[in-house]
Amino acid sequence: MARKPQAQSNEDRLIARHFKPIARHPGALGLIDDAATLKPPPGHDIVITADAVVSGVHFFPDDPADAIAHKALRVNLSDLAAKGARPAGFLLTLAMPKRTNDGWLKAFSRALGADAKRYGCPLLGGDTVCTPGPLTVSITAFGVLPAGTMVRRNGARVGDHVLVSGTIGDAALGLQLRRGIQLARRWKLSAQERSHLACRYLVPEPRDALAIAVRKHATGAMDVSDGLAGDLAKMCVASGVAAVIDVARVPLSSAARKASMADRKWLVTALSGGDDYEIVCTVRPNRLGAFQSAARALGVAVTDIGRIVRGAGVSFRLPNGQVLTLARGSFSHF
Amino acid sequence: MARKPQAQSNEDRLIARHFKPIARHPGALGLIDDAATLKPPPGHDIVITADAVVSGVHFFPDDPADAIAHKALRVNLSDLAAKGARPAGFLLTLAMPKRTNDGWLKAFSRALGADAKRYGCPLLGGDTVCTPGPLTVSITAFGVLPAGTMVRRNGARVGDHVLVSGTIGDAALGLQLRRGIQLARRWKLSAQERSHLACRYLVPEPRDALAIAVRKHATGAMDVSDGLAGDLAKMCVASGVAAVIDVARVPLSSAARKASMADRKWLVTALSGGDDYEIVCTVRPNRLGAFQSAARALGVAVTDIGRIVRGAGVSFRLPNGQVLTLARGSFSHF
Repeated sequence: MARKPQAQSNEDRLIARHFKPIARHPGALGLIDDAATLKPPPGHDIVITADAVVSGVHFFPDDPADAIAHKALRVNLSDLAAKGARPAGFLLTLAMPKRTNDGWLKAFSRALGADAKRYGCPLLGGDTVCTPGPLTVSITAFGVLPAGTMVRRNGARVGDHVLVSGTIGDAALGLQLRRGIQLARRWKLSAQERSHLACRYLVPEPRDALAIAVRKHATGAMDVSDGLAGDLAKMCVASGVAAVIDVARVPLSSAARKASMADRKWLVTALSGGDDYEIVCTVRPNRLGAFQSAARALGVAVTDIGRIVRGAGVSFRLPNGQVLTLARGSFSHF
Repeated sequence: MARKPQAQSNEDRLIARHFKPIARHPGALGLIDDAATLKPPPGHDIVITADAVVSGVHFFPDDPADAIAHKALRVNLSDLAAKGARPAGFLLTLAMPKRTNDGWLKAFSRALGADAKRYGCPLLGGDTVCTPGPLTVSITAFGVLPAGTMVRRNGARVGDHVLVSGTIGDAALGLQLRRGIQLARRWKLSAQERSHLACRYLVPEPRDALAIAVRKHATGAMDVSDGLAGDLAKMCVASGVAAVIDVARVPLSSAARKASMADRKWLVTALSGGDDYEIVCTVRPNRLGAFQSAARALGVAVTDIGRIVRGAGVSFRLPNGQVLTLARGSFSHF
């Protein structure tokens, strides 16, 4: 007669131990199946987005496991928010080096579970594989919104106001600070300001609360992940328009303002560096008040930083009327 | 005045050159947005599945680019078919070493485009990132089916017949052959048989045509990716049942039959090795004829290999009444 087989691979055990406890949504089927189901409410579209983070590329190999989990999920939630969608769930594909230990997985899965709960975005399934390379976390996130209402990159129109949420440049400056802590003295930062920049780089805060206001009032939107200058330029290309941005109005934290005053090159870093995970969107003049009120009611700061005009390209205007030259990132000159 | 910015990163250029041409589905939005949309027909669920393949783990680093593309997508299509779902689209997350060249990307994206067309599964979006590690292709695939009809692992019931599509063990033997070509002589294979095994390892053929028959007639189903023995054991655990398999009835190709006759250890490899990408499913006795007729009409061979019984575990019975001992894969002893 047959003895009872051990019908559980190492992968099954890992999933059962670390990921099943955070996958309680009925669509996840307890993570024992090969697939999950997703059922949008009637009259709704599903918005899908995928973003991967790689150790040594998108985060430091010695970043804490919980910070990596937060970053991996939140960069996707940021995309959903910018499109005006409410999170509905995600799939996790984890490529792990053999040395990944149980303690790391415990911290990683707990942080992922905490975010899944916080943002109403349950883990629905995924895949775990071994890799001889660096830890790689690929997430596909799903959102829902009323059919046909996804806010696109290509909707900006001449005359629209350009608005951004939160503050710009903190994460890019936080990354500089992480590479050379002596900058904190040069920028004359308080301990709190130093920690503000460091946190903004380490753990993004997606603007999920703003999604509904973006969907109701914006003509175009995207999240700022590759730098305000480059991402706004992409929006302009997609929409066939240009933008004029008033540099003095770009919202900066006190830390970013101090860095910008220490040397203009740090202002350029703030405007063209990445990892902001704020939302940049365009709003018709007759909807500006309504958008600003809605954002206020949702508890998210938004700032009007410029206008959409005819032409091509993005101009960053300084208070003296000069145009700031940005040479970094996806920009060359302008 | 502003000069025209180069609002295209290397990533944008790569996407525009290689992936935009194969992403013509309206939901893909021309791959210029951060997200795509998916709209299931009314009364349908979306089935989602994710599977990643890593160079040096799931395929050989010197496998041709088109074979890697086929494998990466088809392992996902195999999951959808086993769940009874019709393909609806996929997201591609490509983690590429810096040395990945244009010729490779061209061959890869063309093969992916050809499969997207062949299986009616359009590219909807994704992400491309650099990695200091091996090439890693993570795909999330979407399928649709009438609400509530996804075929699960846990539906097998006592008395059900166990059926598999196609032939079992070819890919696992093809992998052995690739590691030691002298086996071909030992197994007395013809050139055609050698090539059959090699191809079955290199490029899976998902049983997408069978999906509708599985959905209509099967009580439980999964695709055979980790070996028939291990995967059937997983189904039994999920369903709280046991299975008795008649080894003589397990469908083998002429090549696999020759290998099995050369040494019983190769029969064990065939039954417990992975990468078959066939479908194993369970069918009530009163639906068996209907399922077999439906499969015949769809042009997919299915074979009745055993029964679901009370208890736990999977027994592989030899013609002499003995039980075959499998020690490989997710099994230990039985």
